[in-house]
Order: sequence, then structure tokens, then C-alpha cells
Amino acid sequence: MTYITHEALLDMDSRYRARLINSLSGYKSANLIGSINEQGQTNLAIFSSVIHLGASPALVGFIMRPSSVERHTLENIQQTKQYTINQVGKHFWQAAHQTSARYERNECEFEKVGLTAQFIDNRSAPFVKESQLKYAVTLKEILPIALNETLFIIGEITDIICEENVIQPDGYIDIESLGTVTASGLDSYHLTHRLSRLSYAKPSTSTIELNVAGSTQHG
Amino acid sequence: MTYITHEALLDMDSRYRARLINSLSGYKSANLIGSINEQGQTNLAIFSSVIHLGASPALVGFIMRPSSVERHTLENIQQTKQYTINQVGKHFWQAAHQTSARYERNECEFEKVGLTAQFIDNRSAPFVKESQLKYAVTLKEILPIALNETLFIIGEITDIICEENVIQPDGYIDIESLGTVTASGLDSYHLTHRLSRLSYAKPSTSTIELNVAGSTQHG
Repeated sequence: MTYITHEALLDMDSRYRARLINSLSGYKSANLIGSINEQGQTNLAIFSSVIHLGASPALVGFIMRPSSVERHTLENIQQTKQYTINQVGKHFWQAAHQTSARYERNECEFEKVGLTAQFIDNRSAPFVKESQLKYAVTLKEILPIALNETLFIIGEITDIICEENVIQPDGYIDIESLGTVTASGLDSYHLTHRLSRLSYAKPSTSTIELNVAGSTQHG
Repeated sequence: MTYITHEALLDMDSRYRARLINSLSGYKSANLIGSINEQGQTNLAIFSSVIHLGASPALVGFIMRPSSVERHTLENIQQTKQYTINQVGKHFWQAAHQTSARYERNECEFEKVGLTAQFIDNRSAPFVKESQLKYAVTLKEILPIALNETLFIIGEITDIICEENVIQPDGYIDIESLGTVTASGLDSYHLTHRLSRLSYAKPSTSTIELNVAGSTQHG
């Protein structure tokens, strides 16, 4: 095994360290966040930091670097309190990555990367039409992380739009069958294949492998 | 497409909603967090909320539910300020899942699930010997999320232990070749296969596919 000390870490070239440290957390979610400002200018940006926070209330969070290309997204969310989160799928992952380019404020990422803005009646922010699992979010709280001047953006999930037939009888959504991609490091994208679902763990018994519908394999 | 309104979401059976909402963020990291209390009792628990926060300083975060089985981990981290994060691999993902069972404080999860505690000289918290990519973390900040009474635990990465030959020339770690697994929903585990790495996105040019070493495919 290779052993990297804290001292070696601090001495590393900054771009090398960025790629290394970005690989440590494991696989990341890949999502496009859609927003709009009060003038009707849309924005779309890829994020690999979206995480589940809780189901009741239904909360989702993500990390934002205010000094980066993400600043247009931040300004829009602060103005309107509305945004959408759209899972990145296997048919448009390269276009999704391209949204991380530093476009001007008046340039439309949807148009530039070849994705389609989709609007629903009661929500202002644009969805990504090509995404097979997406939802509208209302801003609830912005927690500043002073340690590195990032922001933790927390919102409540309101409307969900999902491909039919992938929601299982117990509520689990088969995102693998949707072709949802996962990311690693700063720039690597991956498809998945399921090992198994597992039964709820209890101290006294071994877990059992479940099929995608949440039933025992032979049940 | 299926459309789920906010009203329908609020009316759902709570376990069904938990599985549904847990599927929305996309793929999750799968990590074991190792800790120890001042009496030398170790603890090991699986988390699917570990996320990258920044490379300089090297920060990593995760979400904790203080009322759950995660409370032993929290108490240990508060006592010692030290913990380890260990990527879950394809050879022990079922054992990793089993750590989520509600064991007593004096029961050793390592022993119960069949994993091996590993210690290094200058750090108190136990690593998982079976993990091929793991690191020691020092607690920096605990941010309370009042909206659902969870905690966002932030730490600085110090020592990294990694399988040889998977760190690429540019710093990217090939976690796919390590057999690192990813999770979806509450209980599904997946292996991956790489679509590609992509070049840094610029407004004026298309991104280029890179090989795992970060070079152009024909370069």
C-alpha cells in the first residue's frame, strides 16, 4: 500500500492534489441544477455534490463555490428561491459536463450544450427535458462553511418528474435502469451494474439479498 | 413521465417516501467510518453521505443523524476528534452494510461483521484493513442543520493509505479498478464501468475523451 503523510499532502502540486483529494470521497452523484433570474435568463450547471439530507421533510443539499462558474446559479437561487435538480443520464453526460465551462451570464447553457429547457406550470426554474428523473426544489437555508468559503445550499423537494415503471412497489427508484451516471474525481463518468439490494440490517441475523423490487430473490 | 406533486409527496406512507426520496440525489458514496472512544472501544458504521468539500485545505464532510445507530460514532468523534473514512469495496460490501445494525455500545462491529481493525502509529482511530483506499480525518467543525436535526460533520484529511498503482500521473485515483462500490436509495449497491474521463470544459471548444491516465485516447 502507498502511504501519503499529511506533510506530503501539503507539499503537493495544487492541481495534482485537487484530483487526488476529489477521488477520496468515493463515487459522486452527477446532477444538473437549473435556475432562472428575475429577467428570465436561465442557467444550467453540473454539480457532483448533491446529497440526500432527509425524507421528512424531503431535503436535499449541495455545495457551492461562490467564486467559480457556479456564481450565476447562486445569484438566481437567491433571487427566486427556486431551482431544479436533474439526474445526468447516459444519453447526455458529455453535454452535462460541458455546462461547467465558464459561459457569460447572458449566454444560455441549454443552447450552448444542446439540452432543452422544460417548464411546468407552477414552478419558475427550468428542468432538463432530457433527464429521466428530476425535481423542483425550494431554497430553505444557506449554511456558510467558513473553513473554505463554500456554501451548503439546502432545499425542500416539491414536484418530482420521473420516467414511468422505474418506481418499485416499495418506493425505491431503479436509477440504474434510467441510465443515471455517477462521477469520480473531477472528470470521470461511470455507468453502474447492481450487485444487489440488501435487507435491513439487524444484529442477530445476516442480511439477505433482495431483487430490485425489494423482495427476496426467491420470494 | 410520472408526475408527483408536493401534496402527493406529503401524503405518502413514510417508509415508501423514505425509499423514494433517498433515490433522488443519484448515486451515493459508500464508506465505513471508524472511530474509538477514550476507553479504547472501537466503532464502525457505514455512511452514504460522505462528500468532497475542498482540496486546499483537504476537507471532507458527512451527514449524521444523532438519534440513530450513528450516535456511537458521533460520541467517539466528539471525544477524540479523530476518525477514519474507508471506501467500501466489492469484497466486503455485505459486511459493510451489516454495520448499520443496531449493535450495543460494548459490541465491536469489526468483530460482529468480520472486518479487521488496523491502526497506524500516529492516529488513534481504527482503519478497515480490507479497504483499499482510506484516510485519517481530524474533526474541524460540526454544523447543525436545524431543519431536520441532523449534523454536518466536517474534517480535514491527514494521512492517506491507498493501493499502489491506482494513483494516475495527474493525481486522479482509479477507484473503479479498486472495486469501490456505489450505493443508491437506502439499500442498493452497485459496481461501475467507466464511460470516460473528459477534458476540462471550455466555452469555445468541445470536451475531449481522456483515458484513465488523463491523456487523450490517441495521445
